[in-house]
Amino acid sequence: MKAVVAASIFFAACAVAVFAASGGVHPRLLLTPAEVQEIRAARGHTPLFDAALAEATAKVERALAAPIDVPQPKDAAGYTHERHKANYAEMQLAGFLYQVTGEARYAAFVKAMLEKYAALYPTLGNHPAAASSSPGRLFHQSLNECVWLVHASQAYDCVHDTLTPDERARFEKNIFEPMAHFLADERAAEFDRIHNHGTWAATAVGMAGYAMGDDELVKKALYGSKMDGKTGGWFKQLDELYAPDGYYCEGPYYARYVIMPFYVFAQVIENNQPELKVFARRDGVLCRAVDSLLQLTSVNGEFIPFNDAMKEKTFQSPEVILAVDWACVRYGRDAHLLGIAKRQGAVALNAAGLAVARALAANPQPPAFEYRSVAYGDGPRGTDGGVALLRAKSGGSQSLAVLKYSAFGMEHGHYDKLSVIYYDQGREILSDYGSARWVNVEQKWGGRYLKENKTYAKQTVAHNALVVDQSTQYGGDYEAAEHQHSDAHFFDASDADFQVVSARDTTAVKGVAMQRTLALVRDPRLAFPVLVDVLRATSATEHDYDLPFYYQGHFLATNVPMKVATTERHPLGKDHGYQHLWLEAEGTASGPVQFTWLNGSRYYTVTAAADAATQLVMTRIGANDPNFNLRNEAAFMLRTRGANKVFASVLEPHGVWDGTKEFTTGGFPTIKSVRVLAATDEGTVVAIAGAGGLAWTLTITNRAADAKAERRIEANGKTYTWTGNAALRRN
Amino acid sequence: MKAVVAASIFFAACAVAVFAASGGVHPRLLLTPAEVQEIRAARGHTPLFDAALAEATAKVERALAAPIDVPQPKDAAGYTHERHKANYAEMQLAGFLYQVTGEARYAAFVKAMLEKYAALYPTLGNHPAAASSSPGRLFHQSLNECVWLVHASQAYDCVHDTLTPDERARFEKNIFEPMAHFLADERAAEFDRIHNHGTWAATAVGMAGYAMGDDELVKKALYGSKMDGKTGGWFKQLDELYAPDGYYCEGPYYARYVIMPFYVFAQVIENNQPELKVFARRDGVLCRAVDSLLQLTSVNGEFIPFNDAMKEKTFQSPEVILAVDWACVRYGRDAHLLGIAKRQGAVALNAAGLAVARALAANPQPPAFEYRSVAYGDGPRGTDGGVALLRAKSGGSQSLAVLKYSAFGMEHGHYDKLSVIYYDQGREILSDYGSARWVNVEQKWGGRYLKENKTYAKQTVAHNALVVDQSTQYGGDYEAAEHQHSDAHFFDASDADFQVVSARDTTAVKGVAMQRTLALVRDPRLAFPVLVDVLRATSATEHDYDLPFYYQGHFLATNVPMKVATTERHPLGKDHGYQHLWLEAEGTASGPVQFTWLNGSRYYTVTAAADAATQLVMTRIGANDPNFNLRNEAAFMLRTRGANKVFASVLEPHGVWDGTKEFTTGGFPTIKSVRVLAATDEGTVVAIAGAGGLAWTLTITNRAADAKAERRIEANGKTYTWTGNAALRRN
Repeated sequence: MKAVVAASIFFAACAVAVFAASGGVHPRLLLTPAEVQEIRAARGHTPLFDAALAEATAKVERALAAPIDVPQPKDAAGYTHERHKANYAEMQLAGFLYQVTGEARYAAFVKAMLEKYAALYPTLGNHPAAASSSPGRLFHQSLNECVWLVHASQAYDCVHDTLTPDERARFEKNIFEPMAHFLADERAAEFDRIHNHGTWAATAVGMAGYAMGDDELVKKALYGSKMDGKTGGWFKQLDELYAPDGYYCEGPYYARYVIMPFYVFAQVIENNQPELKVFARRDGVLCRAVDSLLQLTSVNGEFIPFNDAMKEKTFQSPEVILAVDWACVRYGRDAHLLGIAKRQGAVALNAAGLAVARALAANPQPPAFEYRSVAYGDGPRGTDGGVALLRAKSGGSQSLAVLKYSAFGMEHGHYDKLSVIYYDQGREILSDYGSARWVNVEQKWGGRYLKENKTYAKQTVAHNALVVDQSTQYGGDYEAAEHQHSDAHFFDASDADFQVVSARDTTAVKGVAMQRTLALVRDPRLAFPVLVDVLRATSATEHDYDLPFYYQGHFLATNVPMKVATTERHPLGKDHGYQHLWLEAEGTASGPVQFTWLNGSRYYTVTAAADAATQLVMTRIGANDPNFNLRNEAAFMLRTRGANKVFASVLEPHGVWDGTKEFTTGGFPTIKSVRVLAATDEGTVVAIAGAGGLAWTLTITNRAADAKAERRIEANGKTYTWTGNAALRRN
Repeated sequence: MKAVVAASIFFAACAVAVFAASGGVHPRLLLTPAEVQEIRAARGHTPLFDAALAEATAKVERALAAPIDVPQPKDAAGYTHERHKANYAEMQLAGFLYQVTGEARYAAFVKAMLEKYAALYPTLGNHPAAASSSPGRLFHQSLNECVWLVHASQAYDCVHDTLTPDERARFEKNIFEPMAHFLADERAAEFDRIHNHGTWAATAVGMAGYAMGDDELVKKALYGSKMDGKTGGWFKQLDELYAPDGYYCEGPYYARYVIMPFYVFAQVIENNQPELKVFARRDGVLCRAVDSLLQLTSVNGEFIPFNDAMKEKTFQSPEVILAVDWACVRYGRDAHLLGIAKRQGAVALNAAGLAVARALAANPQPPAFEYRSVAYGDGPRGTDGGVALLRAKSGGSQSLAVLKYSAFGMEHGHYDKLSVIYYDQGREILSDYGSARWVNVEQKWGGRYLKENKTYAKQTVAHNALVVDQSTQYGGDYEAAEHQHSDAHFFDASDADFQVVSARDTTAVKGVAMQRTLALVRDPRLAFPVLVDVLRATSATEHDYDLPFYYQGHFLATNVPMKVATTERHPLGKDHGYQHLWLEAEGTASGPVQFTWLNGSRYYTVTAAADAATQLVMTRIGANDPNFNLRNEAAFMLRTRGANKVFASVLEPHGVWDGTKEFTTGGFPTIKSVRVLAATDEGTVVAIAGAGGLAWTLTITNRAADAKAERRIEANGKTYTWTGNAALRRN
């Protein structure tokens, strides 16, 4: 998706309305009078939009039929919390419906509810269940208060013209002004913080400001509490939270969350101060923000769950629907985006949603979104490491390998430098645990992050990442981790048969340098692409090295004789996450290790270089978990000890297993062995051999990246030469 | 589906061909000359059928491009086994394609392959890897040899007229005659056995007989090795393996397997001896066989996996496609069957498949198959206990509760009298393990039944069934179990708000009588139907009683304080399956137990009557499993001790959990307590109470069933009266 900052012909009918600045009239936030006319005219003609409207109507009618309750705040996840959340959603929808239908009862509902808030809000101090560093008044944390204000401002804006001057004054004086000042001034640290919370806060304060015509509040929202553009503010958030290519620093799960205040407030600014050209900022970074968010999903639309993440989140989440619809309109027609909108099966309740619904009605079979191999830089300049995705067609689906070498990503980051995630058949095959949390589930600590999120999910051993001395990267110290990042080494997806990425880290473990290289390789002798994974650790001193593979599926076989804990089980260790792993089995290798499992309709085998110093350890999550908070997932781990070590493996999908037709083929892998031939400061050489005479030699530079450099390694009496950063020589 | 033994108008065009007897001409088995003409004429006009044809063509063209290999038999699951399987499939399809296209090369392929078998077969003795009680020659067990003959006879029949008399004589003398006689005479015990193996053997021998015009072989096939209709034979199989209502004695998984020889040979008989009126036999039991097979699936088409069963099997399995297509044609148009055919998305490669493909082209949106509540009797007269299904709409999906009180079901039966299985949202919620087997997976003991199938999956504790004294029903003795069955007590699905089934058993545990009653109850105060489960055990002496609930999903909470095995785990017991259960936690109840878990987008809570003598035990499968053959599934178990005990519980689906929209409601159950008020020889009285003043009294007769009887229990100073077998009084 190119950053075309113009509506295309396709969206032209809608664009007229969307781009019209609202001036001093109301509504002026997320709806303009012209858009209202357009939506009124469109009713009954655009099925997807009508469905959204009907859903909203049903919700509001139920609300109108019940007594309004604005309770005294009490709890952080119970009735009063949920009631205030429901109130803002109902107010916002009722305001919208008033505009679209002109029916006074919707406006009366908003007014009646605002009256109750106008009576309550001035009486509130800090929330009684406040526990966060930034408590709210209506809610236990100010973040929720921001979301309340984002919605209530829209409701107020929509019914503004139905209110008497006295009523307006009362609501502004008792609710919107004090809440906005509370958020911008009393909670200035949170407000100015470059963080998704800060983005929400700026958006909330700015929307209240525009709704009331309060220029100072708007300036604070745009330029920070000191209105200088340096302290904080929405523009600084936009400039610093996103990398130039649209990658969001906390990773895809929170990128999904923050995309909403970014798009919502961008739209509000555009409607009120089009001269700020917000959608063109940073050459249209908001366009790339949506594209990168979508690229960071599996083919099923699930966000790749590194850092704190819930695996249930997909691009069908409401905030992504909203962003995709606006991106369609703001950045011109992108048929691939329309493909996503089609799979979302729903549109936003605004002019952009209407435009997309129309576009889909006119073009019901848009091309599918184009997933591609890509490397994203992290940080405001894109130079703080990053995340790379390698993708290749794999049977009827797609293989996707992810290498993470980004910065830490603030509080929701994990200690998982150079970790790998791998999908095939649209399934997780090597998985990332995500976060230890059951969001919204009251029985699980009110749906909050669980203790095990810290003790397990964030720890290095919870990832497909190298663990040194059974410890956690950065010693598990957030302050140390937050200011460090790995480095991109090289990335090349130009050869569809040999896509490769490499990254390095010297920060995560003192005295240990790591380089990990992934290659997605296709070969006529293999039914599916295979993932070659070479991780080299170097140190001046000896260390224990553990490399876990969290495989999803059912274990079938290994060539390593295993001692299995059949009648008594103990945890693998005492801390750094090891205390949560049951030791299921262990064995000692006597050459390349093979480990095979079944997932869906395919077999998967990891063939890994190993010697008699290598142990194979099988584990399962669940020890020291008194509340059964963790999922009991399995892993195997390659364990060895030394100063300089190379873990080299090939993950090969193979065969077909069809339980419905009782049919199988290819139950054993083609790749038979992986051996490290050389590993020097110059480079690493790995030999891969398989059935049918398959023999590959993979060479990787360990020097500075240079795609044209002539490379040469002499080791063990042999000389290996190649050009560029990595090469695969095939027999 | 009514047993209408006539083709309807809908299928009339095809019916002419299907019903035409073949006389002495070829083909005469599963194709007739008239059908061949019809299929030739239809090519290119019926997409689903053309797809089947194209798939077959692709397979055969690949075979024609490769050298023919008819290897010396060696292995039971390796190359020679798979090669002989592939050969029969390729021959059968090539024969079919010869008929349909008239291209000589297809016939030549069949001939060339038969020449090789004609050379090999006479040289063979018993298979070198034979281990079964009935070894074959080409294959390790004669069952596979039967399947070979079923296919090869069709191939021979199709190319018959292209062969010289010498060639025919050679093939018949060297292959078909000796193989048929081997199966019918040398393997007479297997041939006459009333069992799916016997059905396959009769079908194979009969098809060879019809193909060669050998009346004696045909008679043996129809009437048993002694041709007396008493020893065995296909008709006796049909008469004794199915209950009058079409229930197959081994349960749905093997019903799916045996439906193929039943329908294949029925079709062959009809084509050759229509005067035998095979499709009308037992008032059309083959029609009800298909209907009951389909009723015994979940809404996703998965066969309910009691007894030895693989959960991957669905009604999309090829043998079910074949049976559904023929049932459509033979028993008249059933639009619901057509609904299944649509979901199968494929048709059989024969005249019936063509008829169904045409019907679907004409009626692309047939009504969905109608799942209903039904009780099936087991045994030839339907009097040997049975299986009951209670179904009710549940949100957008369906609740399904299964009570099993059948006979044992031969070697693949499990020791699970009065066990329960429960589905909701199209998901297993209380699950049956099925069999411990990874079918076709060579790494798992060649895909055969694993040792753990006996030591775990068949054991009582592996089921949602009452375990007495930590032992297995019938002492785990097959001979004892095979001749016993539970008894139907009563079944009534006439009240959609209170569907109920009850069954009893006095055979499974010496000195212990059990009665289990399930009710699927709807109530305006509950979002979904709830499953009430009352199990009463009576004995003259005290016993330990364990009642497991194998819940699928993630545990959330229980009201019982649990001691959790966090740092060391041990098996729950030493044998009868207990050795495979890790003890995860245990606690003692102090009143009704509540146990809540999450599955899909709903919460589930079991609320069970309990007192301070009741323990709650949490387990996970996986101990003493050195090859990791078992799935690590969780259960909780109610454990108590006494002579007469009642386990009464309500399983309530509640709320909504939507991780994509981050939304939840109803995380806590409405039902709060279940108490047993009385349990006498007259009846059992259970009180169920919940939020909103919900108060139910369930009364169940423990006397003989009589839907009109006036019932009365006096217990604990109170009198309970009702009419019929069970009643639910609601406040």
